[in-house]
Amino acid sequence: MAGNSFGKILRLTSFGESHGAVVGGVLDGFPAGIEIDINFIQAELDKRKPAQSEFVSQRSETDKIEILSGIFKGKSLGTPIGFIIRNKDSQSKDYDHLEQVYRPSHADYTYEMKYGIRDHRGGGRSSARETVSRVVAGAFAKIFLKTKGIDVNAYVVRIGNVSTQRDYRDLDFNDIEKSPIRCPDAKVENKMLELIKKTATEGDSLGGTIFCVIKGVPAGLGEPVFDKLNAELAKAVMSINAVKGFEIGSGFSSAKMKGSEHNDIFESTEDGISTKTNNSGGIQGGISNGEDIYFRAAFKPVATIMKDQKTVDNKGITVNLKGKGRHDVTVVPRAVPIVEAMAALTIADYLLQNLSSKL
Amino acid sequence: MAGNSFGKILRLTSFGESHGAVVGGVLDGFPAGIEIDINFIQAELDKRKPAQSEFVSQRSETDKIEILSGIFKGKSLGTPIGFIIRNKDSQSKDYDHLEQVYRPSHADYTYEMKYGIRDHRGGGRSSARETVSRVVAGAFAKIFLKTKGIDVNAYVVRIGNVSTQRDYRDLDFNDIEKSPIRCPDAKVENKMLELIKKTATEGDSLGGTIFCVIKGVPAGLGEPVFDKLNAELAKAVMSINAVKGFEIGSGFSSAKMKGSEHNDIFESTEDGISTKTNNSGGIQGGISNGEDIYFRAAFKPVATIMKDQKTVDNKGITVNLKGKGRHDVTVVPRAVPIVEAMAALTIADYLLQNLSSKL
Amino acid sequence: MAGNSFGKILRLTSFGESHGAVVGGVLDGFPAGIEIDINFIQAELDKRKPAQSEFVSQRSETDKIEILSGIFKGKSLGTPIGFIIRNKDSQSKDYDHLEQVYRPSHADYTYEMKYGIRDHRGGGRSSARETVSRVVAGAFAKIFLKTKGIDVNAYVVRIGNVSTQRDYRDLDFNDIEKSPIRCPDAKVENKMLELIKKTATEGDSLGGTIFCVIKGVPAGLGEPVFDKLNAELAKAVMSINAVKGFEIGSGFSSAKMKGSEHNDIFESTEDGISTKTNNSGGIQGGISNGEDIYFRAAFKPVATIMKDQKTVDNKGITVNLKGKGRHDVTVVPRAVPIVEAMAALTIADYLLQNLSSKL
Amino acid sequence: MAGNSFGKILRLTSFGESHGAVVGGVLDGFPAGIEIDINFIQAELDKRKPAQSEFVSQRSETDKIEILSGIFKGKSLGTPIGFIIRNKDSQSKDYDHLEQVYRPSHADYTYEMKYGIRDHRGGGRSSARETVSRVVAGAFAKIFLKTKGIDVNAYVVRIGNVSTQRDYRDLDFNDIEKSPIRCPDAKVENKMLELIKKTATEGDSLGGTIFCVIKGVPAGLGEPVFDKLNAELAKAVMSINAVKGFEIGSGFSSAKMKGSEHNDIFESTEDGISTKTNNSGGIQGGISNGEDIYFRAAFKPVATIMKDQKTVDNKGITVNLKGKGRHDVTVVPRAVPIVEAMAALTIADYLLQNLSSKL
Repeated sequence: MAGNSFGKILRLTSFGESHGAVVGGVLDGFPAGIEIDINFIQAELDKRKPAQSEFVSQRSETDKIEILSGIFKGKSLGTPIGFIIRNKDSQSKDYDHLEQVYRPSHADYTYEMKYGIRDHRGGGRSSARETVSRVVAGAFAKIFLKTKGIDVNAYVVRIGNVSTQRDYRDLDFNDIEKSPIRCPDAKVENKMLELIKKTATEGDSLGGTIFCVIKGVPAGLGEPVFDKLNAELAKAVMSINAVKGFEIGSGFSSAKMKGSEHNDIFESTEDGISTKTNNSGGIQGGISNGEDIYFRAAFKPVATIMKDQKTVDNKGITVNLKGKGRHDVTVVPRAVPIVEAMAALTIADYLLQNLSSKL
Repeated sequence: MAGNSFGKILRLTSFGESHGAVVGGVLDGFPAGIEIDINFIQAELDKRKPAQSEFVSQRSETDKIEILSGIFKGKSLGTPIGFIIRNKDSQSKDYDHLEQVYRPSHADYTYEMKYGIRDHRGGGRSSARETVSRVVAGAFAKIFLKTKGIDVNAYVVRIGNVSTQRDYRDLDFNDIEKSPIRCPDAKVENKMLELIKKTATEGDSLGGTIFCVIKGVPAGLGEPVFDKLNAELAKAVMSINAVKGFEIGSGFSSAKMKGSEHNDIFESTEDGISTKTNNSGGIQGGISNGEDIYFRAAFKPVATIMKDQKTVDNKGITVNLKGKGRHDVTVVPRAVPIVEAMAALTIADYLLQNLSSKL
Repeated sequence: MAGNSFGKILRLTSFGESHGAVVGGVLDGFPAGIEIDINFIQAELDKRKPAQSEFVSQRSETDKIEILSGIFKGKSLGTPIGFIIRNKDSQSKDYDHLEQVYRPSHADYTYEMKYGIRDHRGGGRSSARETVSRVVAGAFAKIFLKTKGIDVNAYVVRIGNVSTQRDYRDLDFNDIEKSPIRCPDAKVENKMLELIKKTATEGDSLGGTIFCVIKGVPAGLGEPVFDKLNAELAKAVMSINAVKGFEIGSGFSSAKMKGSEHNDIFESTEDGISTKTNNSGGIQGGISNGEDIYFRAAFKPVATIMKDQKTVDNKGITVNLKGKGRHDVTVVPRAVPIVEAMAALTIADYLLQNLSSKL
Repeated sequence: MAGNSFGKILRLTSFGESHGAVVGGVLDGFPAGIEIDINFIQAELDKRKPAQSEFVSQRSETDKIEILSGIFKGKSLGTPIGFIIRNKDSQSKDYDHLEQVYRPSHADYTYEMKYGIRDHRGGGRSSARETVSRVVAGAFAKIFLKTKGIDVNAYVVRIGNVSTQRDYRDLDFNDIEKSPIRCPDAKVENKMLELIKKTATEGDSLGGTIFCVIKGVPAGLGEPVFDKLNAELAKAVMSINAVKGFEIGSGFSSAKMKGSEHNDIFESTEDGISTKTNNSGGIQGGISNGEDIYFRAAFKPVATIMKDQKTVDNKGITVNLKGKGRHDVTVVPRAVPIVEAMAALTIADYLLQNLSSKL
């Protein structure tokens, strides 16, 4: 039932199959009169595009955004912002042998069960290519957030069994984009790169974890009960392909803690009320408390591998599947801008929702 | 913005403050003609009520459901099902000293920042008492799911640093309700009980983890892109008070795995197509594949403790807070029916949403 | 699909069958911190209650509102406002003979076709008793609108073939409540009363038309394209039982006019830009222009009459139906507060929606 | 707040300004596996395009639809259907003199009040050019309705003071498209054509009325209370530019009738239960009863006229406005496919919503 939209007031509706003509979206509810820097949006989009380095997929899309509506003389009109990105380098023939085959841990089988029909080329609608629209919409959201002094940053903290333990407050976020795999901890980054290379030679793939922090969110943002800010962030991030886990603040480690350890003590500072610790991850009772909001998302390894696998076709007959096509060893570095985009869209929507809390 | 509703077709709208007259809800979109066993609903509600044993809060509500509409001659009418549960044992005076105080890791401060006003008695709307409405609505959802052969079971796998490692397929779910803390692994249960007693004497509180499995969901359930079944489950569960983390299938451990380990190989069986392993947790591309759907939720320790804590009041002045009132050492056992309720509501809603996928 | 809610940000969910325990509602999204005068709400509710005079239905409900949540120390909390009104005087036995019968121009047959089950007592959910919830929620909306200087007034302009031709600007709205049938044009009122008495003796019923004007709406309120302010007002009003037509501004008469006659010429006044005429009814392109918003709604005659009618039962067998029970000759006077309520809810919701237009 | 979407399960989101690059839309929730005849969609679109005859606007768009997603091998995928139509013949220079001017009875002033910015070229988003997206989506809806035996037909019953009194059951709907102004009553059509020619020479414009009938809707379609089928049809139609009134069944004339005249008596026929008369217009209690659904919509005269008019600019200074550009004397004939589209979208959405009424 219309599962292709995200947000209530600021609302993205996305469309497009991986090997169709375009992927695109409509961003409705974006406030009027905000200056839009198209170059910034293109730059955000460039962050997720394939073939940025030897470490990611070799599909070479130019991924150039075309804005179709909603912008006039460089400013938002308040009307829906339509946009498309053309699919230029889709080599659909690579998928001919998969028309009747259900690839392991892909969505081929489930889409067929739901719809009775599917576009098998490149995964069709289930492809991560769909996230192009998220990044574009997220870039618009970031532009809006910037006018409110809010800043979203994500980076890679784990690839396979290699992870950084450094606190986000000790890292320089300018180092994120300098790293080909978006890990700002240089020592760990090197180990990750080695692991990726090694895994590539094995024809295998890797998962990982992304950390995201949102700074500058004022206290009082969020909705009670079902639409808690953390709940909507969870949905936003869990809707990204390959995400299997989400935790905010102390997350799963909170289950092992005692109340006296976990409670974030309030104190008065020059800037007003704040908390000594931030196990809450900036959200209490579903509403922001003015501290940094931070969370982690776990990505499973890419399902497409270069190793032979057994599977079945749509008649239930066992077939051998040989790895073909162009694929990432790990999607995690490319998923960083997607995580940021979903976080930015969520916060922007909640800022608008919050306008009616009290008048 | 109207954050008190959950679901699209089957939609719960909840209302009520902890120390107001009632908590209640309206369940709209429940299909007509389904036999409703009120005793079952009351029994579900009894699972979450306080004072079930010495291990949980001593507030003694009778928590008797009153159905106000939508049922006629024992069957659902298709019209909205209104219901209330009266708040009988609210001892609001216990909260008088908190009227101007922001308790650590509660929602006092954030509600005040958002609304500029709050009902300080028992946490008002932010109280977990609100989950009464979830359990009632979830019981209706379970009745509907039962007609489709779908079954939801949750139980406690961790309290503090004590956890069970046993596979859910090796446990007898009939043991869940036999355990005062809803842990069907007897050995671990004992250790948990000891820990709870010890922590009670310390005046401290504990977090924990709940595991939930949904059996009988047919392949093909879920929506693409933003409303992936796993994303909505994440939101449903993360909206429960005190939940800090959610993971489905392999979850956070997937980040450490290789594709060749993680992929769930399809095979043909007598019952049709299934997968050898189930790292996916029964969902691929956001749509169910017919395997068990299972997930974990991490709960932080209860914020209210019997130890003294420093905090601030609404003028920013530091105050000493002494633990008062009646509170659980851990909410995790009582949260089991709440987790089940949210899972049941989600699956039921998606069953109804799925009716229009193909015709 | 969940058709029991109205509004996006300010959202009423209603529940209750005519002869069930209660009718009630949940009003979510009402801004926090607004003083709530319960007496005002009760007074609004009293306007629609039966047995106000000899001219309306003799069912005698006290219709006393019980607020269940969302109000604290006389102010709105920002949390959902739950409320119920008990059904005290429902004489369900009057409806026993109708259990298998489809009354002409009632919803008995259509509810049975849709749901396969229905509460036949007093029309169940399809009864106009449901509008109690609209009036309560509308009263809250009016309280909010008053803080913004917005005022909603409706009155009867036609009963059967008797109508007033006087311009609304020439009438004194204080006369509305002085009239037992809410027609502030005294001459026409008398003719209407005569017609109603005469029709009562015939055992027949009457339709009529209500006029509504909303004053004080600032320019710039409304949403583009599908959610035009006039479109939502039309839906709001057409959702009231028995309404068969809606027209705004010049309405159906506009079809006969030329552009040069119909166009509302802009001019500068001391108070800013306004229009010389107001054929637009205060809305242009779906957005308010600062002039009075006014519309008309046509109500069909009450379906229940005291005359004998033929109809069929649920086996398709023809049966004779004799008029029984207590019913209005015309619902139009009692529908006045309902029309006002739906208009107030719509405008209040759009005020909140408008907050995010530009920032 | 995101007012550019229509429908709940079948949901159109539209975008595009009149003189921007494109107008387009995304149709989400369209069931999978339905054969899509693109030629039919193009043919529907051709019905609303300008310059079909000497009687309508001389803007000559080719208005060729480009489907961007959601269709694969001629069938719907169940994924969102994106589409665009390019704006080729927009002569934006015609609007240079209007950049600071508020045209009478256009949306220039109200958009500026709401957004603080507007695209003045051709009315921007407020232009009727936006309805292109409605007609495309409506054509998809018609394809779906055809598989259910449901048929939507609309035609012109009034232009200015010329109207047909003939019953729709006496007319041949094949004559609609044979008429350049979509009036299937040949005698009246001639008088309308004369009036249009005469009014053209005067530089003035005309309003009119469209009648629409939906055949084949099964009994039991619709939702209770706020989302009555008639209420949603009213909103759908009132959201079309220039519509000032809507009436269903007996409409405004019902206000003058008595219950004994108006009631539709049920009777048994070979085909089941039906009604002798159809004053209800096929809907009772908001739910279809299996009879024809029919309604009327009143359109005001086109605001743009070739006569001189006074108005004000954005500084409040009075200016003389001379008629320029290419405009219809009346939009009513071109609005026929738009009315059909909105009716088809509504019925299709309610068919999908109805799937969960009972199971």
